[in-house]
Amino acid sequence: MAEVSNKQVIPREYVTGFPKESDLYVNSTATIKLKLSEAPEHEGSSKKLVLVKNLYLSCDPYQRLFMERIEGLSSQSTSSYTPGSPIYGYGVSGHPDLKAGDLVWGTTYWEEYSRIPEPEGLIKIQHTDVPLSYYTGILGMPGLTAYVGFYEICSPKKGEHVFISAAAGAVGQLVGQFAKLMGCYVVGSAGSKEKVDLLKNELGFDEAFNYKEETDLNAAFKRYFPEGIDIYFENVGGKTLDAVLLNMRVHGRIAVCGMVSQYNLDQAERVTNLMHLVYKRIRLHRFSVRDHYHLHPKFVEFMLPYIRQGKIVYVEDIVEGLESGPRALVGLFKGLNFGKQVVDVSA
Amino acid sequence: MAEVSNKQVIPREYVTGFPKESDLYVNSTATIKLKLSEAPEHEGSSKKLVLVKNLYLSCDPYQRLFMERIEGLSSQSTSSYTPGSPIYGYGVSGHPDLKAGDLVWGTTYWEEYSRIPEPEGLIKIQHTDVPLSYYTGILGMPGLTAYVGFYEICSPKKGEHVFISAAAGAVGQLVGQFAKLMGCYVVGSAGSKEKVDLLKNELGFDEAFNYKEETDLNAAFKRYFPEGIDIYFENVGGKTLDAVLLNMRVHGRIAVCGMVSQYNLDQAERVTNLMHLVYKRIRLHRFSVRDHYHLHPKFVEFMLPYIRQGKIVYVEDIVEGLESGPRALVGLFKGLNFGKQVVDVSA
Repeated sequence: MAEVSNKQVIPREYVTGFPKESDLYVNSTATIKLKLSEAPEHEGSSKKLVLVKNLYLSCDPYQRLFMERIEGLSSQSTSSYTPGSPIYGYGVSGHPDLKAGDLVWGTTYWEEYSRIPEPEGLIKIQHTDVPLSYYTGILGMPGLTAYVGFYEICSPKKGEHVFISAAAGAVGQLVGQFAKLMGCYVVGSAGSKEKVDLLKNELGFDEAFNYKEETDLNAAFKRYFPEGIDIYFENVGGKTLDAVLLNMRVHGRIAVCGMVSQYNLDQAERVTNLMHLVYKRIRLHRFSVRDHYHLHPKFVEFMLPYIRQGKIVYVEDIVEGLESGPRALVGLFKGLNFGKQVVDVSA
Repeated sequence: MAEVSNKQVIPREYVTGFPKESDLYVNSTATIKLKLSEAPEHEGSSKKLVLVKNLYLSCDPYQRLFMERIEGLSSQSTSSYTPGSPIYGYGVSGHPDLKAGDLVWGTTYWEEYSRIPEPEGLIKIQHTDVPLSYYTGILGMPGLTAYVGFYEICSPKKGEHVFISAAAGAVGQLVGQFAKLMGCYVVGSAGSKEKVDLLKNELGFDEAFNYKEETDLNAAFKRYFPEGIDIYFENVGGKTLDAVLLNMRVHGRIAVCGMVSQYNLDQAERVTNLMHLVYKRIRLHRFSVRDHYHLHPKFVEFMLPYIRQGKIVYVEDIVEGLESGPRALVGLFKGLNFGKQVVDVSA
């Protein structure tokens, strides 16, 4: 089989501060052999490789952490992207000839075709009556993150008061809907009027506010949570966390999914109210979906009926073509996405 | 029965900053009727009161929180002492006529005799072959705190690397010995050479250091934990926590028992390294022994053999008489105690 063109998205250098579109470039001259035995790295190797055609690529906040070298972290915690090589992340892929049942989701590379060195990390897609892109979101890593984070980490109870930051994002929009299903009072924050409207009018949040318009976050929480917050689903960190701490209730739980407001700062914002953990006996748990993949089958069985019956809705922001990838990914850190940000590779 | 004299320790006013001995005074003119039916507050009341004679009173860091009014806290989290009324805290008490089997420990008042309005909070002492003062420490609230905090909250495994701050204190000295029993590598910090020697030479810690002599805490942790920290038993907060965060390993656990270094500050120290919770998937859990009293009987059965066989040692710093109470209690916040600080009321 002949070599084919294989467009790629590649970082030029390590990033500090907010990533710019120009920190990534699209390499249109790469090629790939579509027969594995002809791939040079496969000759004489017993390593099991799988060749996939990438269909959808997922833009996720954690990818910002991979764009820079972080001092003092051992390799076991976070590795970095390599300038000059395609970035990687979650995606939905098929085999190049796309036989039915050959669809997978998992970690792949930002390019048209990829050789996956650890195919055991790819999860076979069983249900294709829902949009395939959902496996980058509501049925994939972010969905499982919301599920594990809310049901396993937050120990929620009916009637509890739940706050979610970055609530219109890939994870937040689901956590809010899960919390409503459980009978909680749910407030979300987001960064635009449109997102706030989405939360209140489409996703069923009790209240929502635009954090950019709140000069005093503590006052905002006092307004929306006069009796305090039982559960904080933490996506942003920094001064939001600091103000939430002042408003948590006794035995509150903070599930730390991420702290995206801090990822682009040279110097992290300082948090001054940790003593409220002590006053109020709060559990603050940084969890990672990576430790919970065994729950994925159970999670999919849980989610599918809600999706099919329209009881949980999911908002995606899909851009077309790898060329749109850099803008979509860096836009995530300015909040330019409206819902889950996805790149449709084959569009 | 006649009225008897009833010496009391009373706060003059709410405290800010480091408490001073003069913030408390000993009232030697109070009296109490030793017959409950004659107590004015009992007349016509159906409230069950118990009259006790206080034997040992416990000096605990959390008491600092009760000495001031903390803004923005609802009554459910922390209440304050009332200037003009005796302070309260943990103690060992008996009935005034001290029949065998009438010994209890639990919350009482800093005075010779007390009427306890909620006697269901008092726990009967079953084993008296150990020093009675132990029920303010190794067999009481601090001991249960160490037990719950280490075994339940830290999820420890053999061989893990454990750091304990305020390691020579009432709780820390036990956590270190529990961790050694489990086969962990254990390092403690304390505030004097004598305490460091105690940790290394008497309590079996692998290493210990005087935090006052470390100008660069991060460097100290790099020295004692070149491979990082799995478990941090947090007693102090502030800059120690900030430096620990830089040195935690993936899946590390931080059990927050207290943050005593912050209790006397007008403005809490700022913590800048919370992003390491994100990088390393750390669980930070503020726990309180108040939520775990049901484990006390199991805990006592666990501890007694170790105490009787001398396999766990416990260092107490006992002062004599209520008159010594104010100095002992405020000394705790300067680290003047050597081991568990106790007031022997009847000495």
